[in-house]
Amino acid sequence: MSSRSHPAVHPLDIEFPQLTEGAAADNGGLPDDRVRMKDIQGMPGTPANLALRLFQFAFAAISVAVMAATSDFPSVTAFRYLVAALSLQCLWSLSLAMIDIYALLVKRCLTNPRIVALFTIGDGITSTLTFAAACASAGITVLIGNDFNNCSQNHCTRFETSTAMAFVCWFAVSPSFFLNFWYLASR
Amino acid sequence: MSSRSHPAVHPLDIEFPQLTEGAAADNGGLPDDRVRMKDIQGMPGTPANLALRLFQFAFAAISVAVMAATSDFPSVTAFRYLVAALSLQCLWSLSLAMIDIYALLVKRCLTNPRIVALFTIGDGITSTLTFAAACASAGITVLIGNDFNNCSQNHCTRFETSTAMAFVCWFAVSPSFFLNFWYLASR
Repeated sequence: MSSRSHPAVHPLDIEFPQLTEGAAADNGGLPDDRVRMKDIQGMPGTPANLALRLFQFAFAAISVAVMAATSDFPSVTAFRYLVAALSLQCLWSLSLAMIDIYALLVKRCLTNPRIVALFTIGDGITSTLTFAAACASAGITVLIGNDFNNCSQNHCTRFETSTAMAFVCWFAVSPSFFLNFWYLASR
Repeated sequence: MSSRSHPAVHPLDIEFPQLTEGAAADNGGLPDDRVRMKDIQGMPGTPANLALRLFQFAFAAISVAVMAATSDFPSVTAFRYLVAALSLQCLWSLSLAMIDIYALLVKRCLTNPRIVALFTIGDGITSTLTFAAACASAGITVLIGNDFNNCSQNHCTRFETSTAMAFVCWFAVSPSFFLNFWYLASR
């Protein structure tokens, strides 16, 4: 991994501190990934991606916390599944946020195709699980609230809040997935 | 649309019936979309894509039919939503199957970026709706069957069949979406 990811401060940059994009284009016609990829905000290793990861982590954590705070969530399979899927999303987003912080601190690019492919597959799996959990919970919540009119005996507001947070979390994961997928296809 | 999609039988082909791919590559170095894109099975206008569309249509239709055959589906919001979402999927897949049949009959390519972008957005929306409906129905079905143990009074088998068909339909829509998305990103 370390042999594949290039340090952003290359020996060449020290020798030629005024290296511009035009000069980089003249280096024998080779594509300069370091210059090109740094411009795409939202790719792994950029501040925009770190913000997106922290956003995902925060909403997944809120969703799990609100659902786990209700006393009767283990009686419904879909709610137990929501807690499991959003916990996984939480861990995944936190791990990638850590990697982003590391990449930003040591000024390394994470735009190696293999790393991006790994992130894309992970994002695809976790976002599908999160969306499935959110939809299943939404189905149950609507069933309890609208079809049974049984909100007096259940924590409808908490279930709804947790479901809404899960949907917001899914909305935050989707851009990561599609950006990485687009990068993989367009390289 | 007609000015953008190229007829596969070009006047050049009539003058030179033995035009091979090698000869096409010699035409001034211009990329020959007709030759290149015809090779990617699964893109709009190919037999593989037509098969995928008919597969989607069939499973969406079975899912709607099985769900609509139960007497008590309108009492649950998620099941009503499943019928609506899968009906939309049915119409979308049937329309695109018709377009594919037309494209195959008149031997036209449908690999214009604008048309593919339209198909990608449509596939993205319908597949998301289908997956959401399948997940919500799965949540309700598991609630009735496992959590309430109330299958004697409900049509559990029919609900499960309909949900399973909706998931199969989503599995069939995903390749269409990802192939088109990949084509848009890589061109």
